This record gives sequence, C-alpha cells and structure tokens, in this order.
Amino acid sequence: MQPESPPPPPLAGTRCVVTGGLGFIGSNLVRELAGRGVGVTVIDAMVPQHGGDRENVSDLEVPGLDVKVLVARIDAPEVADAVAGAEVIFNVAGQVSHLASIEDPLRDLDLNLRSHVAFLEMVRVAAPGAIVVQTSTRQVYGRPQYLPVDEQHPTSPVDINGIDKLACEQLHLLYGRMHGLRVSALRLTNVYGPRLHLDRPDQGFLAVFIRRALLGDDITLFGDGSQRRDCLHVDDVVDAMIAAATCPEAVGEVFNLGHHESLTLADIAGRIIAACGTRSVVTCVPWPEDLEKIDIGSFQGDYSKASDVLGWKPSVGFTEGIRNTIGSYRERAWSPSST
Amino acid sequence: MQPESPPPPPLAGTRCVVTGGLGFIGSNLVRELAGRGVGVTVIDAMVPQHGGDRENVSDLEVPGLDVKVLVARIDAPEVADAVAGAEVIFNVAGQVSHLASIEDPLRDLDLNLRSHVAFLEMVRVAAPGAIVVQTSTRQVYGRPQYLPVDEQHPTSPVDINGIDKLACEQLHLLYGRMHGLRVSALRLTNVYGPRLHLDRPDQGFLAVFIRRALLGDDITLFGDGSQRRDCLHVDDVVDAMIAAATCPEAVGEVFNLGHHESLTLADIAGRIIAACGTRSVVTCVPWPEDLEKIDIGSFQGDYSKASDVLGWKPSVGFTEGIRNTIGSYRERAWSPSST
Repeated sequence: MQPESPPPPPLAGTRCVVTGGLGFIGSNLVRELAGRGVGVTVIDAMVPQHGGDRENVSDLEVPGLDVKVLVARIDAPEVADAVAGAEVIFNVAGQVSHLASIEDPLRDLDLNLRSHVAFLEMVRVAAPGAIVVQTSTRQVYGRPQYLPVDEQHPTSPVDINGIDKLACEQLHLLYGRMHGLRVSALRLTNVYGPRLHLDRPDQGFLAVFIRRALLGDDITLFGDGSQRRDCLHVDDVVDAMIAAATCPEAVGEVFNLGHHESLTLADIAGRIIAACGTRSVVTCVPWPEDLEKIDIGSFQGDYSKASDVLGWKPSVGFTEGIRNTIGSYRERAWSPSST
Repeated sequence: MQPESPPPPPLAGTRCVVTGGLGFIGSNLVRELAGRGVGVTVIDAMVPQHGGDRENVSDLEVPGLDVKVLVARIDAPEVADAVAGAEVIFNVAGQVSHLASIEDPLRDLDLNLRSHVAFLEMVRVAAPGAIVVQTSTRQVYGRPQYLPVDEQHPTSPVDINGIDKLACEQLHLLYGRMHGLRVSALRLTNVYGPRLHLDRPDQGFLAVFIRRALLGDDITLFGDGSQRRDCLHVDDVVDAMIAAATCPEAVGEVFNLGHHESLTLADIAGRIIAACGTRSVVTCVPWPEDLEKIDIGSFQGDYSKASDVLGWKPSVGFTEGIRNTIGSYRERAWSPSST
C-alpha cells in the first residue's frame, strides 16, 4: 500500500503575476509562490531608489522553477502579453513614501494611480475573470478616530500617497464589480522583514531604525516616542495575500491586516537596537512642522474581518521577527555594512 | 445730508479666477461675479463636447466689466501667470459624465485629477493663501446607506468619475492643510438652469429630459421611475459658491448642497414636459446591465451644515426653476431647435 501523498499547497500549478515582484514585499511573495510550484511572472519597473532589486529573485530564475521576470512599468504595452491568461494577479507595485508624494505629487499619481488604471484596462481584456489581490495601506484611514481601526472606519487620508492609494484601491474593487475581475484588497500596516532595502530612501521608519541600529547610530524619534504602531512581518503579509487569493469569500472585499502587538515607537526602536546588539541610543526631538501636518498619531488595525473570512492572523511577534530580519542582513552581501 | 450708499456686495473689487468658466455652472458664476464688480479671469480648456461655450460670457468681455478669458487647460504653464495674485479661485473645471469615465478612465483621470494636481501646484506658488472653492459631487458617496445623506456618510464611489472626483476633493483639502490655501469643497447634486448645454452628450439626465421635452420626444426612464433626486437650480449653486468664498468658517470644510424637494424621476420628467407644453410621454424600460451596476438608487443631500455654517439654503423650487430654464432656451440662439 502506497502512502498517500500530501495535497499540493494552495495555488500550486497555477500561473500568477506579481507586480512589484522585485521589491521587498513582492519578492518575498514570489519566493513563497515559486516554492509551492506556482508559475510566476514578475513585472517590475525597477524604479531607481525604490525597493526593486534583481538580486531578490535571481536565484529563482533557474531550471526547475518557473519564474520569469519582465522589467517594465505596469502600464507598458508588453504587459498585456505578460498578464494574458494569468489566473491570479498580485498587484503590489507602488510608491510608498508619504514625503516623496508631497514633494512630487504628479509622480506619486503616476506610479500609484494612473499606471494602475492602464494596468487594469489591460488585465480585464487579457485575463478576464482573474483573481486580483491588491495591496492597499492603512494610510487610507488618515488620523484614526478610534483604535483599533476596523474597515468601517471612515477613509480620510492625510497625504497625497494616501489619497492616490485609496483611489487605486477603489478602482480595483470597481473593476471587479464592472468587469468581472475577482478583486480583494489588503490594507497593510508597517511591514518589515528580509529584503527590506536599508540603503535607499523612503522605505519607511522601520528601515531607518534597522539601518541606524545596525550601524550603531542613534535613532531619533519625533515627539515623545509614545506613538504606537502594529508592525507586520512580511511572512505574515505573504500568508494573507495567498489566503485572499484562494478564498472565494474574499472577492469584492477589503481587509485590514494588523497585529495584536501594539508597540510604541520608543519600544520598537529599543527592541531593534537590542536585536542588533549595538550601542545606539534613542533620542526624542520636536516634530518638524511639515511632517507634523501629515502625522496620524497612533495606529492599530483591527484584523478580525481577515481572521473571520480568510482565517488569517499574524503569527510572528515583533521581537522574534526583528531577530529574523537582522539575521538576514548579516547573511546578505547588500547589507548596509557593504554599501 | 447725503444718503448712505449701500454696502458693496460680497467679493466686489476682488480678483477671482473661475476654472471651467465657459461651462454651465462656471459661466453662471462668472456672470454673477461680473455683475458685482469682481475682476474675473476665466480659464477654460473648451474641451470638445464638454459644456464650455464662448457665447456664455462673450457679452461680458466689454469695457466697463473686468472679465478676461484664457482658453487653456488648467495644467497649462500659462495658468501660473493667470492665477498670480488671485484672491479667490473657484475651481469648477471637470469632466462630469459617469459613463464616459468608464469608457475612457485614463481621460477622466487626466481631466478630473491629474490636471488638478498640476493646477494646485501652480496655485500654491502663484497665489499663496488664496481662497479656493472646489466643486465636488454627491457621486463621492456612491449608493446611499441612508437618506438624506449628510457629510458623515461614508464615501464609497461606484464609478470612475466618483473615484477621481473624491480624490480631487481630498487633494484640494490637503493643499489647504499643507500649503496654506483656504479651501472649501461643495458636493453638488444634479444641477440645472440656463446655459446647461442640451445638444452635447454627457451633460446629465436633466439635459436629456429637457431636450427631449422641448422637442416633443418621449422620455425613457430606467426601472420604474421611482428613484428620487434633489435637483438644484444653478442660481442656488452660485449663491453657495459665493457664500463659501466669503465665510471664514468654511475653510477646510466640505459641504453638501441639496434640496428639500425630493422628486421621483417620473415626477421630474412630468414637470419638465408640463413646463415645455409639449406632448412628450414618459415610458419606463428595464435597466441596461452596464448602467445598473453603477446606479445609486435614490439620493437626497442633507444640507444642514451648509445652512448652519454658510447661511445657505436653496431658494428655487423645481417647478419655478424649470420654467425659468425652459424660458431661457426659448430666448437663445443655441437652443435645441436651432442646432
């Protein structure tokens, strides 16, 4: 009697597209998918100074794995061929910096909204009925009126990036209702983990904290450091994305991702420094005026809808996750010490 | 003893800019402002098949009145000079068709959002501290969860036009908070009145009803005609715009405009036919599938915030307003019978 072979993991044998797949979150997703026997087409514009890095997936472009990389903007004409017949599309591409969006609002609009309109127009023709998972952001809520923030909370973004990302999320869901794509959207909070680029600007405060702690530099907090965040390890985000892609009840829905650990920025900085084992010191300075205007105070996402519908919850605690992250930088040639 | 002269009307002697000022709502505003002794710079792209019509203000470009017209997109470089030093900017320009926005989403994004980003970037430099009144739309709410809809109602647009207009409104308010412009936004419902173009597509259902009634053609309603709307005469909209521009408490705020008359589409069509005195007949047909997907059901705006803060309320009832409107088409050379 032969032993039964285990069932294939979800999405095994399907053809998926991952936009932004050379970047931080995208490449972690691509690696997980490739390991499951998924055929993956990566589309990434390799925008200079963004998170995209060919090294993130170069070891996957080998015989035995079915990973193809197209370096192109998501609105480039050749993308129509690249998405043709895709069963699942993870649309992760985007510009993530709030400050950059205010300094160059037309660029943010182009990267976070206009190119996605063109992309969806191609997808609805070339991959009709495809499952589409869009990565949105907690930034759509703006300054919370209550905590934790559930999906019923009003959307009132406080910066250009949040405005463009909200419109992008609404656009995705509309293409689902209008054109038959099976769309869901995940509103991410601050994400960290291996392949978060530390030596490029605008990758978020966690990248700054980790880089400075690794180098032994002091970490400066605005205000008194008592603001809270619920940080997510990228492995948990990848789990949620795959859950959304494989759950029929996710179609047409928006889900918060969040974490039950609500940590102050001072605590986050302290744990990062402890994991690095350096002599960095945390200091507090008053808010710069321009940044205070777009500050949102504390944030924590209520992820009970994702828990109920997708069966998802975060599994990586911050202390464990940050140790794993710091360890990854010590192993890799592009860690800050090598730049 | 000399009799005291009456005080000048609000905004008299100021310099105002009206974008979209050759169109339906914009030109009615320009005419009111010019009559008050306001210096007005009109910026209008004269987009083919939109509402812009040079005839709408040509009688104002005369000695004794200070009305200048710049035919240009709002993102054209020469607009920077045109807005330099303006005290009040009424930003009315936009594409209003829901259906056109779905047929050509990139065009809607360009006209309703991208060009406004570029415009605001010029305004914040060339007219720092200016008062800006933006015309938004009830479409930002999507399908109402309750009636009448107040400003606390969640924003959940159901078409591309609504998504782009919501982002545009949020962008305006953000430029107020970030860059010191004194911004308010007015969410309009269905507007009618003199200078609504009847012989161009996509000017809304009221233009269709009026045109068909004037020609004696039948009026077709989708569904059973029981959907309700609160129609606004353009004179009331102009009053609200001037009130918003002259009320310090309006800064940073969004206001619904609405009407206490909540009329079914069948009733609206009947009153229009009665005002025209033609033999048009109202018929009902099932909803076309593509339109039903973006239908919002009944709508009525709660305008109590505008009433409390701006001291505004609608003064023109529909029967009176539609008579006034029909009369205006009988007097003007560009009425449907002349096309």
